[in-house]
Amino acid sequence: MKQSQLFSKTSKTSEADATSVNHDFLVRAGFVDQLMAGVYSYLPLGWRVLHKISDIVREEMDAIAGQEIFLPALHPKENWVKTGRWESMDVLFKIKSQSDSEYSLGPTHEEVIVPLAKKHINSYRDLPKAWYQIQTKFRDELRAKAGLLRGREFLMKDLYSFHATREDLQAYYEKSKQAYTNVFTRCGLDAIITEASGGSFTKEFSHEFQVATENGEDLIFTCACGFSQNKEIAKVGEGDRCPRCGKEKIKAVKSIEVGNIFDLGTKFSKDFDLKFTDEDGTSKEVIIGCYGIGISRLMGAIVEVHNDEAGMIWPEEVAPYEYHLVSLGDNDAVYKQSEEVYEQLTKSGKEVLWDDRREASNGEKLGDADLIGIPTRLVISPKTGDKIEVKKRAEKEIKIVSIKEL
Amino acid sequence: MKQSQLFSKTSKTSEADATSVNHDFLVRAGFVDQLMAGVYSYLPLGWRVLHKISDIVREEMDAIAGQEIFLPALHPKENWVKTGRWESMDVLFKIKSQSDSEYSLGPTHEEVIVPLAKKHINSYRDLPKAWYQIQTKFRDELRAKAGLLRGREFLMKDLYSFHATREDLQAYYEKSKQAYTNVFTRCGLDAIITEASGGSFTKEFSHEFQVATENGEDLIFTCACGFSQNKEIAKVGEGDRCPRCGKEKIKAVKSIEVGNIFDLGTKFSKDFDLKFTDEDGTSKEVIIGCYGIGISRLMGAIVEVHNDEAGMIWPEEVAPYEYHLVSLGDNDAVYKQSEEVYEQLTKSGKEVLWDDRREASNGEKLGDADLIGIPTRLVISPKTGDKIEVKKRAEKEIKIVSIKEL
Repeated sequence: MKQSQLFSKTSKTSEADATSVNHDFLVRAGFVDQLMAGVYSYLPLGWRVLHKISDIVREEMDAIAGQEIFLPALHPKENWVKTGRWESMDVLFKIKSQSDSEYSLGPTHEEVIVPLAKKHINSYRDLPKAWYQIQTKFRDELRAKAGLLRGREFLMKDLYSFHATREDLQAYYEKSKQAYTNVFTRCGLDAIITEASGGSFTKEFSHEFQVATENGEDLIFTCACGFSQNKEIAKVGEGDRCPRCGKEKIKAVKSIEVGNIFDLGTKFSKDFDLKFTDEDGTSKEVIIGCYGIGISRLMGAIVEVHNDEAGMIWPEEVAPYEYHLVSLGDNDAVYKQSEEVYEQLTKSGKEVLWDDRREASNGEKLGDADLIGIPTRLVISPKTGDKIEVKKRAEKEIKIVSIKEL
Repeated sequence: MKQSQLFSKTSKTSEADATSVNHDFLVRAGFVDQLMAGVYSYLPLGWRVLHKISDIVREEMDAIAGQEIFLPALHPKENWVKTGRWESMDVLFKIKSQSDSEYSLGPTHEEVIVPLAKKHINSYRDLPKAWYQIQTKFRDELRAKAGLLRGREFLMKDLYSFHATREDLQAYYEKSKQAYTNVFTRCGLDAIITEASGGSFTKEFSHEFQVATENGEDLIFTCACGFSQNKEIAKVGEGDRCPRCGKEKIKAVKSIEVGNIFDLGTKFSKDFDLKFTDEDGTSKEVIIGCYGIGISRLMGAIVEVHNDEAGMIWPEEVAPYEYHLVSLGDNDAVYKQSEEVYEQLTKSGKEVLWDDRREASNGEKLGDADLIGIPTRLVISPKTGDKIEVKKRAEKEIKIVSIKEL
């Protein structure tokens, strides 16, 4: 993509209502635009990142036998009344049609997937199964804030697993932990698996995947041994001896929740009468697990973790482009050489953003490259001759290489 | 994918409220599930088709310099008041938040993209530009009907183009016709470019892409020469001499609209004060075009056109899988051989659905293969020995080939 053709432009000044690092950088670099509090448009650069995150999530969910589906956002009121959440869920958007039917806008999808599963699960032979989707969710948050971290409308992956036995759910639940860890590692994040409240459905803990960062909304108590509890359930404090390893001292860390996994037990199977016939002929309730990753929140979390004063620093697998080719100086030879490099890289399947704006100053271009944060910057200027200057966004070292070496 | 693992099951009986061929076949084959009138869940087979249609649309939109973005579904009321459509658009879903803010659920996105374009378009140098998205739309239809053809919630591609001059819009408009024709051809449809009303924004015609089928809601008057007008604006009737070629007689044809393209002129630029500075320094309103394809409707239209009594017949490029491998008879040798073929095809990058259900009867399996409609059926049975029976879904001829030949 030629930067001169890119619809979005960068901005040097922060928006007055930029309340977080991720909002500030993502808006200034033209990745997203805030339509209203907690509601964002994703522009070409931002959409490319979301796409890459989504594809990583797809690969890892497919690897644990997840089957991708796509459920509606409009849900019939009666399904939510049946689970008691029409009244109890305070962030539920409610809507009335011309013909006076009432709907909710899905903030989560148990109310749709469990009745759907009922149509396709009859026997123990139909179990286990796992369905997931990547889809827009809606939550009527009174205080949407922190950029992409807490939105009214956001992109989420939710997977639901269906099991005949508690042991089978447990085995899948452990497998999902590894799949989740893979997702976050590939996104350049070190996620800490943290015990949290199981909510009203189960006495078991749920598990959250928390990423340590100063701007996090959550507080977790962790130990290097792997122990970690969310403040809401923690019985330890900072400096306490770790109850698991008995050696290290507990640290309090601010963090962002990027995923959670949940043992729903039979709560929703009971609500919708989802039963299966077991091998012995008896009828039993299906045991359900649910597993969420905030796709757009993850994009925000990556920015919160990977940035410096000048801008964002995208991890390789989720960067909008692999290379940012920057042509400096209003010089025909430079542009001719740049075009050749751009063509060669693009033809060999590399993803390149080429800053071909002849009217922009060198300072503007290098500043934009730092702000946008593509992992590898290639500079061609009157000084570089027939060579190219290569610099990793995350490093200071500059290498001079020939096109062939590149 | 092994069919025994597929979450969705086929059904022999039509739903009582199946009002159309596409609803009937898609639900019975487990591609979709109707949550309520006009609102569908896409199950793994259906979601694969939607994905393939979306990717075709992406390729063709990218080819005409479209840049993909993703806009919100929740829109602020004030934007819709500004265009006059808060009151005038009868299918607009309106919603109120806990804090009494009012939103609409986007049935189209001029009200979001034009203010967004205003932030990034200042000069003639910024034009032309084209942005598109593939996203869920909402319309509060009183009578949602005809399966995926008229929904309350549906997947749509909408592209918006921005131009400095009317000539530039016209040139892009013509280019989009070719891109649209490419999309429909690749989806196995012969779309007739049809003149239709330009609505309240322009005196020009808009153009619809209409696919002839008995179950279509629309009526068009067409000639083999390429002339075609929607009934709503047609000044010719069936049997009239074609006003364009002057030779052939006009035919009246029932059809489904699968796409439309629209010259919006400066209506929305005026509403949101979207201006650019031209080369001569004067300030002018940006001229806008909009271009829609109903992605989920297209899936329904394909089924309406490509089916027979036994089920659907998917065109190659949009089929959920390329091969349907069917193992007949409860016979170990057959399953061993089938597994080898499945592994070999899958390893070589082919998409295969393998009917590995040992408990299902031969009739059930062959019936399901016809219903699901994957283009190429491969049968392995005690009769086929070390060969494979190959049959195209759309043809009657059966070939016997070796694995190597395959």
